[in-house]
Amino acid sequence: MIDLSDIRAARARIAPHIRRTPTLPFAQTSKAESFGGGVTLKLELLQAAGSFKARGAMNRLLTLSAQQLEHGVVTASGGNHGLAIARSAHVLGVKATIFLPVTVVPDKVAKLRQWGGTVEIVGQIWDDANEAALAHAARTGATYAHPFSDPIVVAGQGTLGLDILDDMPDVDVILVAIGGGGLITGLSTAVKALKPDTRIIGIEPIGSPTLHACLEAGRLVGLDKLETRVATMSCRQTDQAIYETVSRNVDEIVLVSDYEMEQAARSLWFEFGIAADLSGAASLAALQSGRFTPAQGSKVCALICGAGTDGTAS
Amino acid sequence: MIDLSDIRAARARIAPHIRRTPTLPFAQTSKAESFGGGVTLKLELLQAAGSFKARGAMNRLLTLSAQQLEHGVVTASGGNHGLAIARSAHVLGVKATIFLPVTVVPDKVAKLRQWGGTVEIVGQIWDDANEAALAHAARTGATYAHPFSDPIVVAGQGTLGLDILDDMPDVDVILVAIGGGGLITGLSTAVKALKPDTRIIGIEPIGSPTLHACLEAGRLVGLDKLETRVATMSCRQTDQAIYETVSRNVDEIVLVSDYEMEQAARSLWFEFGIAADLSGAASLAALQSGRFTPAQGSKVCALICGAGTDGTAS
Repeated sequence: MIDLSDIRAARARIAPHIRRTPTLPFAQTSKAESFGGGVTLKLELLQAAGSFKARGAMNRLLTLSAQQLEHGVVTASGGNHGLAIARSAHVLGVKATIFLPVTVVPDKVAKLRQWGGTVEIVGQIWDDANEAALAHAARTGATYAHPFSDPIVVAGQGTLGLDILDDMPDVDVILVAIGGGGLITGLSTAVKALKPDTRIIGIEPIGSPTLHACLEAGRLVGLDKLETRVATMSCRQTDQAIYETVSRNVDEIVLVSDYEMEQAARSLWFEFGIAADLSGAASLAALQSGRFTPAQGSKVCALICGAGTDGTAS
Repeated sequence: MIDLSDIRAARARIAPHIRRTPTLPFAQTSKAESFGGGVTLKLELLQAAGSFKARGAMNRLLTLSAQQLEHGVVTASGGNHGLAIARSAHVLGVKATIFLPVTVVPDKVAKLRQWGGTVEIVGQIWDDANEAALAHAARTGATYAHPFSDPIVVAGQGTLGLDILDDMPDVDVILVAIGGGGLITGLSTAVKALKPDTRIIGIEPIGSPTLHACLEAGRLVGLDKLETRVATMSCRQTDQAIYETVSRNVDEIVLVSDYEMEQAARSLWFEFGIAADLSGAASLAALQSGRFTPAQGSKVCALICGAGTDGTAS
């Protein structure tokens, strides 16, 4: 789908518009939680527009021609990709229209509007909103920016893999939440090219095992139903190229419950003052639930990929 | 009150129990905000128990004898110091009782209980709660830990000054919120000893100009009334040693409105996914309101001193 050179090119392209987010050791907590390894949080929730999606979206818009940009951009997004597209469009001074399913968190709709995006709420799940976005693109000439199956978006997300290797040159394991699979595809492409012994662990909701189901079936398959309230991790079916890269690069996919993600989001808030959304808390959920146990003494990066208030309610 | 050696001793003492919090440039925002200088956020809200108060509280408890610890600790706190005392007591396995005024944010009461603290809500303002805490100490033999006038607490807060100089060796200006004045006293003692040309700017609410009023009067004075909803920055009167150190070390005290702090907290949330409390947002409020303008080209550290959900409501 993409290779390291695409990701390096993306990194150079987006660098002036993206934050280098900090890391923080998972330590000084109220419980003597030992996950086998030493865990470091990568605080990508502090990224512009609140998630890693700023990377792919910026790479997407920066590779459009002036003529294409003139007609604006359109996408469908459970929230974070939409915010990132709206923010990238704002940076470049172009128009963005964002289609969303009804499951989107209201807070994110308000934020989209603050970034100057036009919001259209259509359908129960992402797939419905996406159809409407495609129709809008056909009707208006706006460029459609797919949240995960666009190689240029995937290359942008992959820059996070390069950052993590710079932050933690001796990392052994990286835990990454999966929605459609764009982030883990880009990130794992970068990491496996540069440090192939790094274990890449994907996290999916039990109610939306998009790639777990493909790996079990040994081919690209769709889900009959989605049973998670985590909009940013709901995806009925990914695409062939994503599936192929994940099957090659990802060492294991761990399934976690919505409740476990809620608990992890509460821990991040209570222990660290970090306000994550449920996908942002998914990596910690895999550790705290015991569904993933790193090898003793290994260096673990738990990617906190998006901001939200899921853990902050008393 | 204290000197650099006290702060260095505190740093060595508390290091095993404290986080080294990260910094993040104030950049990639939705507005072309230029404050004259380049602003870096010091993310001390990611400290254990949600604020810098963990430093002073830990230093206080670590300097008590085993016999003193046995009787527990007690304090009065608008929230963050209480949390830090409860957390330090939890770390050392001793009992903590926290007295609070009714203005405390309910979220913080829940957190106090999660840290195992016993919560007593007494009075309208901090001073009322403090009297009750002193009575409790006299009655039970628990050690009273004052939130700001205790030199050992102040030395602990001062370690944040050492961290900032390590993070930003060329810092020109540090913006620091003031409640009772313990943080700015400790921090400025460290910074002025090591880099005396650094400007230290204190921020107080218009409705609680505790130290601003003293500097204007040229002596320690009390306020007739408090008119701010920011509990962590409400203080009727500080003490003589704090006043003297501040009058020597602090270059300017800037007053900001509650509304300006709310706006700054919303900015931190929208632009950075940072969930700060109003005191945590005070430094940015001083910049965004234009009440403080750094010299052109100067390097500014805006201390984000505490976590909270004040900016996260839609």
